[in-house]
Parts: sequence; structure tokens; C-alpha cells
Amino acid sequence: MNDNVNMCLLPIEGIKIIVDLEEIKIVDYNDRVKVPVPKSEGTDYRLSKQKPPYDPRINRAAIVQPDGPGFQIDGHTTSWMNWVFHLSFDARVGQVISLASIYDSEKHKHRSVLFKGHVSELFVPYQDPTDEYYFKTFFAVENSDCPNNAVFMDGYYAGQDGKLVKVPNVFCIFERHAGDAMWRHTELDVPDKTEARPEVSLVARMIATIGNYDPALDWEFKPSGSIKIQATTHTHVEQIKEDVYGTLLGDNTVGLYHDHFLIYRLDVDIDVSDNTTPRKSYWTVVSETAKTESEAKIQLGLKPAELVFVNPNKKTKPGNSYGYRLIPGLTTRAFTKYNVWVTQYNKSEIWAGGRYVDQSHGEDTLAVWSLRNREIDNKDMVFWYVIGIHHLPCQEDFPLMPTLSAGFELRPTNFFESSPVLKVKPPKPVTLPKCSAIP
Amino acid sequence: MNDNVNMCLLPIEGIKIIVDLEEIKIVDYNDRVKVPVPKSEGTDYRLSKQKPPYDPRINRAAIVQPDGPGFQIDGHTTSWMNWVFHLSFDARVGQVISLASIYDSEKHKHRSVLFKGHVSELFVPYQDPTDEYYFKTFFAVENSDCPNNAVFMDGYYAGQDGKLVKVPNVFCIFERHAGDAMWRHTELDVPDKTEARPEVSLVARMIATIGNYDPALDWEFKPSGSIKIQATTHTHVEQIKEDVYGTLLGDNTVGLYHDHFLIYRLDVDIDVSDNTTPRKSYWTVVSETAKTESEAKIQLGLKPAELVFVNPNKKTKPGNSYGYRLIPGLTTRAFTKYNVWVTQYNKSEIWAGGRYVDQSHGEDTLAVWSLRNREIDNKDMVFWYVIGIHHLPCQEDFPLMPTLSAGFELRPTNFFESSPVLKVKPPKPVTLPKCSAIP
Repeated sequence: MNDNVNMCLLPIEGIKIIVDLEEIKIVDYNDRVKVPVPKSEGTDYRLSKQKPPYDPRINRAAIVQPDGPGFQIDGHTTSWMNWVFHLSFDARVGQVISLASIYDSEKHKHRSVLFKGHVSELFVPYQDPTDEYYFKTFFAVENSDCPNNAVFMDGYYAGQDGKLVKVPNVFCIFERHAGDAMWRHTELDVPDKTEARPEVSLVARMIATIGNYDPALDWEFKPSGSIKIQATTHTHVEQIKEDVYGTLLGDNTVGLYHDHFLIYRLDVDIDVSDNTTPRKSYWTVVSETAKTESEAKIQLGLKPAELVFVNPNKKTKPGNSYGYRLIPGLTTRAFTKYNVWVTQYNKSEIWAGGRYVDQSHGEDTLAVWSLRNREIDNKDMVFWYVIGIHHLPCQEDFPLMPTLSAGFELRPTNFFESSPVLKVKPPKPVTLPKCSAIP
Repeated sequence: MNDNVNMCLLPIEGIKIIVDLEEIKIVDYNDRVKVPVPKSEGTDYRLSKQKPPYDPRINRAAIVQPDGPGFQIDGHTTSWMNWVFHLSFDARVGQVISLASIYDSEKHKHRSVLFKGHVSELFVPYQDPTDEYYFKTFFAVENSDCPNNAVFMDGYYAGQDGKLVKVPNVFCIFERHAGDAMWRHTELDVPDKTEARPEVSLVARMIATIGNYDPALDWEFKPSGSIKIQATTHTHVEQIKEDVYGTLLGDNTVGLYHDHFLIYRLDVDIDVSDNTTPRKSYWTVVSETAKTESEAKIQLGLKPAELVFVNPNKKTKPGNSYGYRLIPGLTTRAFTKYNVWVTQYNKSEIWAGGRYVDQSHGEDTLAVWSLRNREIDNKDMVFWYVIGIHHLPCQEDFPLMPTLSAGFELRPTNFFESSPVLKVKPPKPVTLPKCSAIP
């Protein structure tokens, strides 16, 4: 073995070992096939090994916030602008957002949006019918994963001996200044009547390293009331297989076609815990309500569909129900058949793929629960969303793949009486320092 | 009339005046119906009129770049990292990107990606069968539309008298630091083997004010070779209509349901001017080539589809054709039926909706040109993409709508031999100044 670190690119293929963990004993060993190992040339991603650096023209840049961050963290509760939410760590899923509520300046109180939200299942089916497989997960964000204005947070879980285990720097929290506008308006024929406010949002980020796969999971809160949930994938596996399942990337190296699926579970509590999902036909407001779990399933992309969660018992002044709606992202349809599911809340229904996943017998999965077709109208509902990213590897992904993102957004829809951001004051401009303190 | 400036919210409805512009004469006047004018209360968006400001907690923030911007502008040509492109102004469509090419560090030359790209058509069909209508466009970006590190560029066009007309500050150009990673990798079981590079991209932005509608149009260039094209809408029209076509937003105010369609025209030249579009079935690489215009049309969302443009006459070392592929965004299907069209290049085919739009007789439109079903295989091709945003207004959009975005991405696919960003050197960290120069 040479000193190259990019082991994912140098797999020894074709060996499968099955271990009985109770007996700590190898019960099966199968050396199916010998495959040539790919060349390691060009696979080292470390900066120290790049010479000469290709392009030094990424200039130094940083966000300055002379008044410090705009959010406050008290234990695991973060307050920022009109949002308050709790962020905690779970040994299985990592990031858990709970009790997210938003301040209503007209009603003078915080109003509930999300009781609890997290990833329920992560599934990366490789289009490779052979069965070598590995799986190992750990969680941590590095400084380089987050911008310079980020604040890091530790996580905790109960270890096998019952003692507290600390996971340092498992999350980062930062204000995102991406250079976009929150709103903008020009009044025609009225000079100097353009105003705009910069879009600033709060991001809570976690990165899970799962074998060759490092998804960054972002929960982004916007002052407008939106919650945007995004998964960014970075996959680097290259395996050696016959060409039909992948793209030949180099000597003995084939990138396998695969999908990335993340199933999110969101226990939404829009204003109150019991919600209703009225359905609108696209061009008239004749609403039907999805009354059962089967009526609420959606195959995105097939026809225009709008999913809204409302408090059916309260109305705005003009008579609309308080609600939040789904803005879906790009969709890949596949194994789950539906992208969107709604189930009646049941405290045991947490893991879409079953509590023990591949050791489950298939009886405790989302697909089976929803066959009971329970009533959801005016009940506490759980919303399931399947993010799918279809990845056909190409040579640009070798040895490291540029990021690819997908996500969805929950956006207030007649939850407020009017725009919650109209009265947000734009920050005073920062005069950039010209002093010698910038090295 | 009171001193409220938000005229879009105070329309005098039901009046239609038709003017003969050759004779400068009113030829028809129709006062169809009297409609009560909405209340102006709560519609003034100007900061000076907000008291008290709702939330002052958006802290001051700015991007500092001690070495200045990382791009160079020479006339209308911008160079940044591995990209070079030309940005110019057209009186009808605004922003025109041309001769975009990317440096290949292995071939030691710039290689063509896009010959010319711009919006061909913008269409906002309101679901309102009555015919009051207005249309007026102007272009300009304001300081508040772009981050503090933006550089502004003027545009020029030939006026009616043949003289040069300058449009000041029509574009802004800036490096976007949104806090994401360009790539990231952790090697399992090897300590301290996580590296990541911050994602930095170059954005060229234009904002068009068209009646009540202010779309921000971004062309974003990434060091990975991707070009991301995005339209962000900010619509503020509220009209007074019976409830069936919209949502009641307040006294006498109804937000009309509507779609936003932008049709982009991209004369792609991937490596060379004559390209081919192989089609892949999703899970095996049996490629079929779309040989004619009708074979290349796509209804996104209906079934998995991959659109790739390749130079059919050159191969990478492992034998893949140099290519770029489409990563579509969220899709709204509607009037154009197809989201994606490919036509053989024809210099007269620029305007998807016809040269004179609503005065056209329908014979010079994209739908008609493509009926000729010309060969596209190994020809100079034009790629048309329809961005659709479906807008069901809600009370949060009153009086000003938070932004909503949609777009698509062209991403290199075996265009390079390997990742073009592996060797990008991360910028040296900026030590934030603690001097008194920050006010």
C-alpha cells in the first residue's frame, strides 16, 4: 500500500465476510472475484499534495459582523429574528429540530410551526447487483464546512454504558448572507421609489460521514416564515465494475450510477397540533380536503399539486385558514413511489424504513403504516418528504465530486395577516475598514 | 389620492383605453365596471414610513475582501477563476451572456461552453379573463439589490435616433460566498483527513421592472464548470376580483393566481459548435441519440430524462464524449407543454413567442419552428428552457411578496478528464480586524 489516503478510491473488491456479533465469530468468508485495483495517481485530494496549485485566484474573503452574531443560544435553544427553535443530537439521525415557533407581531406571541423534524431514513441504492457493502457513520462539522461567522455546538447522547457521550462541534449555526434580496419593489413613474432588503437567513448545519458519502444537512430559517430543508451530497465512491452499470472514469475505475434518498419526518403543528390539508385545484379555489392517509400521498411532477397544512378552526381577517404550504424541490421518482406522505401521528412511527432497517421484516415501515389509511383530517399529522438525488457519475466527480443539492421549503400561507418582513429594518451599512489590521 | 406610493395596490379597475400610436389618437374607451379601491392602509413599504420597526435584530454584516475582487473586467469581458465571458445589454432582453469558455488546465486552453444565452420570452398569464393590462419595462440594479462586494456595469443600446443610450448600473457582478462547500471529503479511520473547500461563485445579475413585477435574473458561474441560471420573482400585484380566481387578501383586495414563465434561449457550443444529444436510459448506458427536434423535446417530471450536449467527435481518455448536462429545477407544466426544446440553429429564431409577441400571427414561434422537425444531430444547436413559477398569492405576499426562485444548471459531464476543482487552493484565512475603523 502506498501513502495515498483516498482509500475509497482503492477498494479491494469481491470479498465478503459475515460476522456473528454475538459469538464474535466469522461465519462466512467469500472471495468472489479478483478485480484489479485502480491506479492511485491523481486521487489525493489533500492540499499539501497539490503542486502547483491550479488556480490561486480565489481571493480571501470573510463576513464581518461588527455587532456579533444576530442570534442567541441558550443551552440548545436558538433565538434569531422572529424564530425560536431547539436543536439537539440523536445518536441515530444526528440533527433534531423541535419546538420551532415564529413570533407574530400582530398577535404579540410566538406561534407553533414544527413540533419535531429530522431525517428518518437515508438510502443510497447502488445500481450494482453484487453485494459488497459497507456502512459506518460519524458526525462532525469542521471549520472548513462552515463560513467564518459560524458558531459551533456540541451534541450529547447516552453511551452503551449509560454514560453521557459528548460529540464536539456536531453542528454549526450561522447567518447566511448569500447576496440575494428578501423583497424588492420599484414603483413605476415614482423616482427613487425602489427599496429592497437583503435576504439573511439562519442555517443549522450537520454533516454525517457515512462510508464514502458526506451529506451536509441544512435547516434554514427565514424571517419571512419559511423553513428550507436541504441536503447537499458529496459522494466519492468509485468502484470497479463492468461498464453497463456506470461510467468508465479511468483505468479500472467506474463510477456507479446511484440514487440518494433522504426521507424526512416532520411532525408539523401549524398554529396548533391538529391540522387539516385542504387541496386546491390549481386555478380555482374549490378546495377538497385530504381526509385520509391515502388521499394525501403525492407523486410530485405528475400533475400540479399543492399541499397545505392549516389550522381549520381559525381564520385570518379576510377568512383564510392559517396555513403553511409545501414548495417542493426537484424530484426523482423511485423506490418509495410517492414523494410526499402524510400520516396520523403515532409515537412509534419514527423510522420510515423500519426500526432495524435491513433486519426489519417490512411490517414496520411507512408504506405499511399508511395502508391502514387512517383519518388525518383535523388530527395531529406527520409529514414525510422524500428527497431524491439521481447521480450519474462523470469524470468531473473523480476523485472528488462537486456538491449537488436538493431540498424543499415550507412557506407560510395565510398564517400571518400580512407580510411578516415588511417592517424588518435593514441593517445599517458597514463601512469597510481600511486599517492595517487586515493582514 | 393620498400620499401612498404603492400604486400597484391602488388600481382603478375596469377602464381600457386603446390608442393609435401612428395617429396619436384614442380610438376606444371602455369603462366596463366600477370597482371599489382597496384601502391603502398597511401598503406603504418604505422604511421611512415604518414605525416602530418590527425587528432591528438583522445585524450589520459585510463581506471583506482584503485583496479586492477576484475578477477582472476588461470592457464587457469578465475573467474569474477558470471562466471568461462577455456580458452585454440588449434593449429587449437586457442581459446577454456570450462567448463563455472555461480554462482546461490539462489541455492548457480555454474551451467553449456557451456561444450566447439570454431570456427569449417572459410571460405572466394572470388567471383573470378580463382584459385590463399594462406593460412597461425598465432595467436597473440598485445598491440594495446586490451585496456590498458587487461591482456595477453600465449597458448601452442604440436609441430611436441612432445615438448611443447609456443605461447606468444595469448589471452587478459579485463573488457569492453563501457559506456552502464546493467539495468535502473525510477519509474513514484516518484522523485529520477531512478537507473541504468553500464554494465561491461569480454572479452576473440584472433586474427588470415590468409593471408590478421585478424579476432578478442571475447567471452564476462555478469553478466546477457549472453555469446556474436563476430567476427570482417579486410580484406585488393585487387586483380586485371575485374570489374564484384568487385569494382574498384584505378589504377589496384579491391576489390573482398566476404563473411566471421565462423562456431562456441558449446557443450552447460544448467544446465545438456542432453538438449531439445522446439520451441515456436511467440505469444502463445504452444511449440513443435525439436526432431531430421532436425527439429532443422533454416534459420534465413525467419520466426520468437526462439531457446531455456532447461533442461527438472527441473523447476523453477513458472514452466518454466531452459533454455538459442539464440539471433541471422545479418544474411547472403549462402553456408551452414542453419544458425543454432543442432546435437547429437559425439566426432568425430568437424570440420564442414571435418577434412582435402579441401582434404576431403565431407563425414565427418556437412551437412552429420545431414542427419542421429538423435534424439536430451533430449540428449547431439551440437549447430552450422554460422556467415556470406558479404563484398562488397568500396574505404574506401583501403588500410585498417574499422572493421565490427557480432555475436550472448546466453541469460538465466528462467535459474534463477529472475534477477541475481538486487543485483549487483554498484562500488564506482572513483575520478579522479588531481596529476602530469599523464604525
